[in-house]
Amino acid sequence: MTTQQLTHQIQLKKSFLCIGLDVDLHKIPPHLLATEDPIFEFNKAIIDATHDLCVSYKPNTAFYEAYGIKGWLSLQKTINYLNEKHPEIFTIADAKRGDIGNTSSMYAKAFFEDLDFDSVTVAPYMGKDSVEPFLAFENKHTILLALTSNEGAFDFQTKKIDHKEVYKHVLETSKTWKNSEKLMYVVGATKAEYLSDIRKIVPDSFLLVPGVGAQGGSLSEVCKFGMNQQVGLLINSSRGIIYASNGTDFVEKARAEALKMQGEMAAILDKQ
Amino acid sequence: MTTQQLTHQIQLKKSFLCIGLDVDLHKIPPHLLATEDPIFEFNKAIIDATHDLCVSYKPNTAFYEAYGIKGWLSLQKTINYLNEKHPEIFTIADAKRGDIGNTSSMYAKAFFEDLDFDSVTVAPYMGKDSVEPFLAFENKHTILLALTSNEGAFDFQTKKIDHKEVYKHVLETSKTWKNSEKLMYVVGATKAEYLSDIRKIVPDSFLLVPGVGAQGGSLSEVCKFGMNQQVGLLINSSRGIIYASNGTDFVEKARAEALKMQGEMAAILDKQ
Repeated sequence: MTTQQLTHQIQLKKSFLCIGLDVDLHKIPPHLLATEDPIFEFNKAIIDATHDLCVSYKPNTAFYEAYGIKGWLSLQKTINYLNEKHPEIFTIADAKRGDIGNTSSMYAKAFFEDLDFDSVTVAPYMGKDSVEPFLAFENKHTILLALTSNEGAFDFQTKKIDHKEVYKHVLETSKTWKNSEKLMYVVGATKAEYLSDIRKIVPDSFLLVPGVGAQGGSLSEVCKFGMNQQVGLLINSSRGIIYASNGTDFVEKARAEALKMQGEMAAILDKQ
Repeated sequence: MTTQQLTHQIQLKKSFLCIGLDVDLHKIPPHLLATEDPIFEFNKAIIDATHDLCVSYKPNTAFYEAYGIKGWLSLQKTINYLNEKHPEIFTIADAKRGDIGNTSSMYAKAFFEDLDFDSVTVAPYMGKDSVEPFLAFENKHTILLALTSNEGAFDFQTKKIDHKEVYKHVLETSKTWKNSEKLMYVVGATKAEYLSDIRKIVPDSFLLVPGVGAQGGSLSEVCKFGMNQQVGLLINSSRGIIYASNGTDFVEKARAEALKMQGEMAAILDKQ
């Protein structure tokens, strides 16, 4: 999928919502546990109930790997379902990978070829040759960690190299890499005030913003500082939507939460 | 496995060799491709031929994920084979994971419980709460990326925060984390001269050293600057050993290469 197609979907649906499919078997409705593949059944139900309200789904690979082969199978069925039923959806493998060049190439194959995701999240610590193999794929996107939404972000990301924060060096340096136009960035919503500085460095890139809702970030603040003329934002919500209820009404409650967020987004887009 | 047990194995085998099981179907002997699970058959043959010469095996998860479900199954069979046949071997999942707390917990479950590896490599960019969930597991070890062996290491890792390199901040900060005694560190052999500085910060920790051989690092230099009284080193070799031949003699050639490295290590240990 191209960023133009993604932007078109955002305008069409009046939504820049990304729903995180972080499925924990201890948190899903117990009645699903009797099915053959509870994780996939849960995802399918959530997707069926919310696909018109969001433009992206983001399974976090950790929640699948924790269940071994069965989990990886659930991940594969989920991405296949999305690609078959909803090719207009922008899919993100939230995998936070990154390794030396020939190894990153294998990760890129895993997520872009074998699983056929539109994008994958990548960690920047190992630098240029750990990220460029991901950027070599046509119509695929690499979402680089810049400033994350957790407490640990202050351990290294906000420390200063030559009077400039590490995450700003990551943003600036990444722009010099081959095929850098395929980069997007993770920027946590809990640090919305940082977004205006970030926009000075990457005015045109899409930003994937976790941390709205459960982690305390504010949608209006993020939009105020982070939106560009093409919107340029994907706001992720995971737990707030998918675990809105763990009863037999989980589908309706998830849709209600997604609708609420989409409504707020539509209002912001209308004011643009 | 405890670090005491690992040190005992090193003294017993006169080896601190770790063999990287990075299996690429384009590089293994073609005659194996006719078997039902060529990746596992290859690993099994390499393990059978070299287990008395090394103290550790390190499958890199990228090479398994690239083959989807089948690859993950090969990884599972490989670690099961190691745990059943060679419980004295220290196993490393080279996965370079790291995410916010509740997500890192799922990765830790994946590698420490579901797959039952002794250790996993973790990226430091997201800080304390992305690493501590791994450190909560008894008799398991977390191998944190400090200074990697690739070119991209110079993009961020060697840049200075307050006159001190980022990787040194990673080493120092990580020592303040809960259960930090379970930490080991990745330090690339291509930068052997950095090892004496690193030993000042983490004198007692095990260092996993990639980059000897194919990537150009020198064993004697690494030992000169990096060895401590308990040895404290695991030297990884992947391609140099496992792809020593891609003919029907691959097992003998792999053993010969491993034996060469073990011999050099024994000579160094004898001089200690």
